[in-house]
Amino acid sequence: MTYKAPLRDFQFILEDVLDIDRYANLPGFADASSDLVRQILEEAGRFSEEVLAPLNKVGDLEGCQLAADGSVKTPTGWKEAYRQLVDAGWPSLSCDKAYGGQGMPSVVTTCYGQMTAGANAAWSMYPGLTHAAYAGLHAGGTEEQKQLYLPKLVSGQWTGTMNLTEPQCGTDLGLIRTKAVPQPDGSYRITGQKIWISSGEHEFAENIIHLVLARIEGAPAGVKGISLFVVPKFLPEADGTPGERNHVTCAGLEHKMGIHGNATCVMAYDDAKGWLVGKENEGLKVMFVTMNEARLGTGLQGLSIATAAYQAAVDFAKERLQGRSLTGPKNPSGPADPIIVHPDVRRMLMDSKALIEGGRAFLLWTALHGDLEASPDEAVATKAKDYMALLTPVVKAYLTDRAFHVTSLAMQVHGGSGFTEHFPASQHLRDCRITMIYEGANGIQALDLVGRKLGANGGRAIMAFFGEIDSYVAGKGSDADLKPFTDALAAAKAKLQDATLWLMQNGLQNPDNAGAASTDYLHLMGLTCLSYMWAMMAEAAFRKGPDSDPFLATKIATGRYFLARILPEADAHLAKLKTGAAPLMALPADAF
Amino acid sequence: MTYKAPLRDFQFILEDVLDIDRYANLPGFADASSDLVRQILEEAGRFSEEVLAPLNKVGDLEGCQLAADGSVKTPTGWKEAYRQLVDAGWPSLSCDKAYGGQGMPSVVTTCYGQMTAGANAAWSMYPGLTHAAYAGLHAGGTEEQKQLYLPKLVSGQWTGTMNLTEPQCGTDLGLIRTKAVPQPDGSYRITGQKIWISSGEHEFAENIIHLVLARIEGAPAGVKGISLFVVPKFLPEADGTPGERNHVTCAGLEHKMGIHGNATCVMAYDDAKGWLVGKENEGLKVMFVTMNEARLGTGLQGLSIATAAYQAAVDFAKERLQGRSLTGPKNPSGPADPIIVHPDVRRMLMDSKALIEGGRAFLLWTALHGDLEASPDEAVATKAKDYMALLTPVVKAYLTDRAFHVTSLAMQVHGGSGFTEHFPASQHLRDCRITMIYEGANGIQALDLVGRKLGANGGRAIMAFFGEIDSYVAGKGSDADLKPFTDALAAAKAKLQDATLWLMQNGLQNPDNAGAASTDYLHLMGLTCLSYMWAMMAEAAFRKGPDSDPFLATKIATGRYFLARILPEADAHLAKLKTGAAPLMALPADAF
Repeated sequence: MTYKAPLRDFQFILEDVLDIDRYANLPGFADASSDLVRQILEEAGRFSEEVLAPLNKVGDLEGCQLAADGSVKTPTGWKEAYRQLVDAGWPSLSCDKAYGGQGMPSVVTTCYGQMTAGANAAWSMYPGLTHAAYAGLHAGGTEEQKQLYLPKLVSGQWTGTMNLTEPQCGTDLGLIRTKAVPQPDGSYRITGQKIWISSGEHEFAENIIHLVLARIEGAPAGVKGISLFVVPKFLPEADGTPGERNHVTCAGLEHKMGIHGNATCVMAYDDAKGWLVGKENEGLKVMFVTMNEARLGTGLQGLSIATAAYQAAVDFAKERLQGRSLTGPKNPSGPADPIIVHPDVRRMLMDSKALIEGGRAFLLWTALHGDLEASPDEAVATKAKDYMALLTPVVKAYLTDRAFHVTSLAMQVHGGSGFTEHFPASQHLRDCRITMIYEGANGIQALDLVGRKLGANGGRAIMAFFGEIDSYVAGKGSDADLKPFTDALAAAKAKLQDATLWLMQNGLQNPDNAGAASTDYLHLMGLTCLSYMWAMMAEAAFRKGPDSDPFLATKIATGRYFLARILPEADAHLAKLKTGAAPLMALPADAF
Repeated sequence: MTYKAPLRDFQFILEDVLDIDRYANLPGFADASSDLVRQILEEAGRFSEEVLAPLNKVGDLEGCQLAADGSVKTPTGWKEAYRQLVDAGWPSLSCDKAYGGQGMPSVVTTCYGQMTAGANAAWSMYPGLTHAAYAGLHAGGTEEQKQLYLPKLVSGQWTGTMNLTEPQCGTDLGLIRTKAVPQPDGSYRITGQKIWISSGEHEFAENIIHLVLARIEGAPAGVKGISLFVVPKFLPEADGTPGERNHVTCAGLEHKMGIHGNATCVMAYDDAKGWLVGKENEGLKVMFVTMNEARLGTGLQGLSIATAAYQAAVDFAKERLQGRSLTGPKNPSGPADPIIVHPDVRRMLMDSKALIEGGRAFLLWTALHGDLEASPDEAVATKAKDYMALLTPVVKAYLTDRAFHVTSLAMQVHGGSGFTEHFPASQHLRDCRITMIYEGANGIQALDLVGRKLGANGGRAIMAFFGEIDSYVAGKGSDADLKPFTDALAAAKAKLQDATLWLMQNGLQNPDNAGAASTDYLHLMGLTCLSYMWAMMAEAAFRKGPDSDPFLATKIATGRYFLARILPEADAHLAKLKTGAAPLMALPADAF
């Protein structure tokens, strides 16, 4: 039942599908030869399997406890595991070398992240939020702020948080009320209540650096009056050591369906001392840098939990003896066959495998575009930026929607055992469910995609995506092995193009048409992206010779399953979205 | 956030769609005029809303506690609510008048059951399992056994349980090991361990009557050697009062993801005294009577929890202010619009509403066929029996699959709030998930449908179903209002027929083809059934005049939504199932 790091799959995608060695001219890649990457990922895999995975269940059972003094006790062993993480230097993997980081490419650190999240999702959110705070300060901080905070966040000596949500304000950040009052010394006094602050308080680190959205007194109403502040739990002394305790406290912990081991805090700011990050009233600009990263991270988290859930389901399906194969006993000497012989169990496992492996390639391919944003070739960099904007909501929402589905399938494979807390299926399902919600609920991602990303720069990003698929398909025209994959990809792309055209024609005249189409459009795009991934993976597998390597033969068979058994959903999404807003909006609110 | 009994919808389906008054010639219906039924359901609705719903959350929070003496403490207030249920005579509603029941038709008691399950699913399983034990003894007991046990189970003075599962044996009942040793006095001594026994031990009632599957010493191996026994917790004295304590004890409680308030027990039988129910080695025959009823009850339970989840989501969507409508502010004087203005929130609510109301009609229409089994018209009775066999797996699996989907949508509507235990979405989702698993996991239902029910009597049931739809559609041909509904129904039926033909041609030559198609086939059938229900509901609404009654106008709009936004899934199911077993079974087990 223990987590197994999918190292071979990482290796296949990085080396055989994406061929990362060809990017040695890009920042970070020179230090990321595929040989070195293998070693790094193997080491991280070991840490995840041996240190983090065994602590996953204890986190679910114990959760976090808030003491009367406002301190938070995390689950048994979690603090020690964090210490091991820091000692091994893992937090610095993806960080800027200028502040003590290792500067590894995103496409590599995205593999690393899958392992910590797959082994122990709630635990991985402590370093995860730290990295988000790092990214916010890195994007928006002054050099002085960076020098003060970043090395400590990079090493993991200090941790970080993001403070956006308030009771009256989740998606709609314009409703933020937390206020910031300027002080003569250039600092601000921050007062207000923030909720759902992941990793908000704990005993892992000597200091916690909160990034907080607030409204400077007199700022314009709505989103144009939001600024970002850095508010440390302990005010740093001149030498950088934690000094005076700041007036920010954990006022409560949420009782949640899952991720129990992460402290989801109500944070009370009561004239807390903070400093502006970036410009006045432009806090959201900085925050969106962080948020885009966090959205990719949430897609990653969902996929990673789904991977762990699938692995547990496979183990169960191979061990549980029940019934006989429809085509005659496969375990004649035993009392029954393992349930993996049953086609409907296979359906659940194959659905999961095809979604996970396709999703993993999609995540890494997207992460690679994050790295390509730094390309010296301007056309490459522009396209990469366009893709990142376009694909981020798809990675976030499509992967987490399907990840939750996979955790539910994994529970179903377990039968009644899955509903008991004796098996890991329940925790995986419960932990995974939040990924569809936080960092922008999936419906918000869909709206971002159709309302903002599609039309940006005259539709340049989606046109580039269509063009890339067209030339990929055209380039493989004569390959008989690959033809089913390229045909399916071309068909999926044609449906997505059809949907895009429908949106252009109907979304502008009535924005509700765009809203009504958004989730189905996003899923259609997710299916198209996975079709592309499966074509590229099949191509790589055929090229390397599946006859000599069962891994490659399995890859091709899984891709064929995707085409046969998952891709048909594309038509339903297209048909639904083309019905427009009328059926959705027909009822007055009081008719519900 | 409190549960609201869907009385108007019951009334619409019973009176306007099914027109139950026309069945006054059938047993029970003479006492079930629509006027009286309204009164009964109103009263039950009040009980569910006022007594049961307020106890739902406490059950989730407290769960059940096993004491050192083997007694089980249920959540605060639950025993008292059960006392009120018994005092009001509700347990007898659907029971045989010969044993103190009220003999109401299933189509009516199926409404009653939805309210208790919707208000408090885990609580409703105590009377629910009692009714299952009643049904088993009623179907298989001797007259002496019936006289001894049934009146007490009918009144609710005693409760009951079903004991099938053992650690090594869930779906595959042939693996049962619990043994029964015949005694000179005609009784048996039962020894073994049963797991996942809902309502197995508690303090609600003075006695608990366990129905237990066991193997009489020397019985044939496998399912042909299973017998059914009645094993009371306290052995009844000659006068029917509980006497000596029997050797059956609760040895443990499962820790589960949901339905915490129901005691899911490990039951230890240690030379417990029991009596055979029905014939030796024919225990499954009796058990299947009960199981079919329990399967319908599980579909009901899923639908009912989904109803409660949907209601909570609607309340939240009307109250939560966040963002502005894409077509301009709808609540200009407030800080933001209620989120029900957003199309993607509408999508989630309309999906839920269309599935729930279609599912409710399907459940009641099926229950009516249960009543029609007693028709004096042999053709009607035969068709009703055929339908019950055919539709039971669809009611169980389709309704629970979609119910879980609805609870997940309801959580999504809540955003982050939904993931906290402060709102009811988490409990609804967690409670609902078990309905896809117990009483035969949904994959087993699908296999039962394609492997057993479709082919029975030369396909008589499914042919009758197709014929009924054909003549329904033909009979409405000229009705312009109804045409979109009948066209859609005809198209759905054609796809189901196509799938059925494919199964006939491919399932026999390779049973794995049938297994591989089973879940998609079941869903295609569920969609077809709901299309039929929506056509009949639209017909009734048009007939009664939607212009004068917003309820009827809403019904028609919801039906149109079903056609536009849910029914397109039928094509995907058809396409998937026609790909056959090959893509599913391609991999060796060790490739997972």
